[in-house]
Amino acid sequence: MHSILALSLPVTARLPASDVFALIAALDPAGIAITALSGALLAARMRQTFVTMAFFAVVTGVGGGTVRDLLIGAPVFWVHNAWTAPVCLGVALMVWFSPARWWQGESTRMIEWADAAGLGAYAVLGTAKALALGVAPVPAAMMGVITGCVGGVIRDVIAGRPSIIMRPELYVTPAALTSAICAGGHMAGLDKMIVWPLAALAGFGLRGAAIHWQLGLPAYGPKGNGEK
Amino acid sequence: MHSILALSLPVTARLPASDVFALIAALDPAGIAITALSGALLAARMRQTFVTMAFFAVVTGVGGGTVRDLLIGAPVFWVHNAWTAPVCLGVALMVWFSPARWWQGESTRMIEWADAAGLGAYAVLGTAKALALGVAPVPAAMMGVITGCVGGVIRDVIAGRPSIIMRPELYVTPAALTSAICAGGHMAGLDKMIVWPLAALAGFGLRGAAIHWQLGLPAYGPKGNGEK
Amino acid sequence: MHSILALSLPVTARLPASDVFALIAALDPAGIAITALSGALLAARMRQTFVTMAFFAVVTGVGGGTVRDLLIGAPVFWVHNAWTAPVCLGVALMVWFSPARWWQGESTRMIEWADAAGLGAYAVLGTAKALALGVAPVPAAMMGVITGCVGGVIRDVIAGRPSIIMRPELYVTPAALTSAICAGGHMAGLDKMIVWPLAALAGFGLRGAAIHWQLGLPAYGPKGNGEK
Repeated sequence: MHSILALSLPVTARLPASDVFALIAALDPAGIAITALSGALLAARMRQTFVTMAFFAVVTGVGGGTVRDLLIGAPVFWVHNAWTAPVCLGVALMVWFSPARWWQGESTRMIEWADAAGLGAYAVLGTAKALALGVAPVPAAMMGVITGCVGGVIRDVIAGRPSIIMRPELYVTPAALTSAICAGGHMAGLDKMIVWPLAALAGFGLRGAAIHWQLGLPAYGPKGNGEK
Repeated sequence: MHSILALSLPVTARLPASDVFALIAALDPAGIAITALSGALLAARMRQTFVTMAFFAVVTGVGGGTVRDLLIGAPVFWVHNAWTAPVCLGVALMVWFSPARWWQGESTRMIEWADAAGLGAYAVLGTAKALALGVAPVPAAMMGVITGCVGGVIRDVIAGRPSIIMRPELYVTPAALTSAICAGGHMAGLDKMIVWPLAALAGFGLRGAAIHWQLGLPAYGPKGNGEK
Repeated sequence: MHSILALSLPVTARLPASDVFALIAALDPAGIAITALSGALLAARMRQTFVTMAFFAVVTGVGGGTVRDLLIGAPVFWVHNAWTAPVCLGVALMVWFSPARWWQGESTRMIEWADAAGLGAYAVLGTAKALALGVAPVPAAMMGVITGCVGGVIRDVIAGRPSIIMRPELYVTPAALTSAICAGGHMAGLDKMIVWPLAALAGFGLRGAAIHWQLGLPAYGPKGNGEK
């Protein structure tokens, strides 16, 4: 009878790290709203219609987590809860009907720093969710990067803009640093209550440094002579 | 023993709304063929090879339903039946070997109206399939929009063209209207045999009005002064 | 009790053609490395950063198989083994730190031929994996094409380049030939130990001929008079 009972329980009830999911549940609305906001504001800067703005808010907000969930075989998070999609659409409505000056000047900078905090947090949560489902460390770390970055990539590809993958800006690298620390700490058997905050902080710090000093990555063969 | 038997039945047999699937089964070949046709004709207008034409027919025909099925965790519909892919390839072959004048002038208009009917029908079917699988109303309505629109978006992104998401044309909006009526009727507990046809008709009517009067959506901040 | 035991076995243990998976396991590291290499070298030619190079190596190496696995409902192969992602990242590191001249002149040609061999092999493996999971012949053949071609398409779309889908080059067609032979042989009940090598060889031969004689596909309506 045991196996029958086990099969009738939802998948999450059998996961060893249900505390991961409690943390996700607590942080998610704010994080989703910040990433959706950055998507909606891009549509406003591009002078698009409300349909484009709503689409950008949704794709930026949920795109990375969606690809992660599909890859690791988990139910896609926002399809199976009732609040994520309304939060993204609400952010788009708020941007559409609010005065444009709310989102200019000092706000731009604040949103950029909030996004940096979200990048670190989502890289931790993405890696942790994959590790909790038994994914090996290197692909699990890639899930952390995907969670933080892929929503913006899909948005930029559909908008016909060069995405962060194609720019020297330090954006994917901080997510990779955070995810690598998480996966490394897991392999070394370290306490995740210490590793996770440190990992998120390292990614946030690197992204913050990139914002403050406008740091970028070097390109391949910069001397242009066919030899590095 | 009940639970064992239930587990060994196919997923669809346990769905409350198996009439949804009967309706899908009856309408699908015509709807798939019309959307595949619009994809193949775009390849012809762009003077592409047969490989591009077949690819456009398949992606436009099945792309939206594929993304919907992946998101809601259903088996991808065209992978698990034997006729959908051949219908799309057959449409591409027909366009490739038929005289170009068949598809010009008055035909263009007829195809556009047939596509408008398909848009309404697929928005209903996409929303209904998601609701039948227990998805909450707002994400379920988004599945309706995805079913009707995402195939063309993937095709346009690969073709390097601006997709309907980036154009002021009223195309995504009619799908959203239909899907919202379906999801709203479901929440209000109304009879779906009344709500569904009405929802499809509303989307078809709005899309038809957009075709006839060339309606478009307003852009953000049209006065160009940084204030709406 | 039988059905309970069956349900508790992993999916692969119930597949009729486990020899398919043995073959995949033996060939995969070399094939993945070659496709990842072609992705990394493209990033080098485009003078991108290491992040772009690593991304191109991963997407080109695993993209096609990922889309196939999502469509047929199999666990995504590289998420559930520990070596594929490190191989792709290792290839990117090797290209980044090696002298550019290693990858020029005669090497370019050798990589192109190795890629042609991989195209044939992956088209067979993709079709065979789909058939083994009970997919019908036409969609199964499409899985073979997707396995061989879609990684490069995703990479090119993100890079903002026209993908092979939009070029007259004979690349998708050899994959389609191989996949069609595999699916046809399966329908005719022929011995796969004969059909598979022949199918791979046919695709490799056609791709090789295209490389050697620079063959391309004809475009629709080349006379430009609206009539073919």
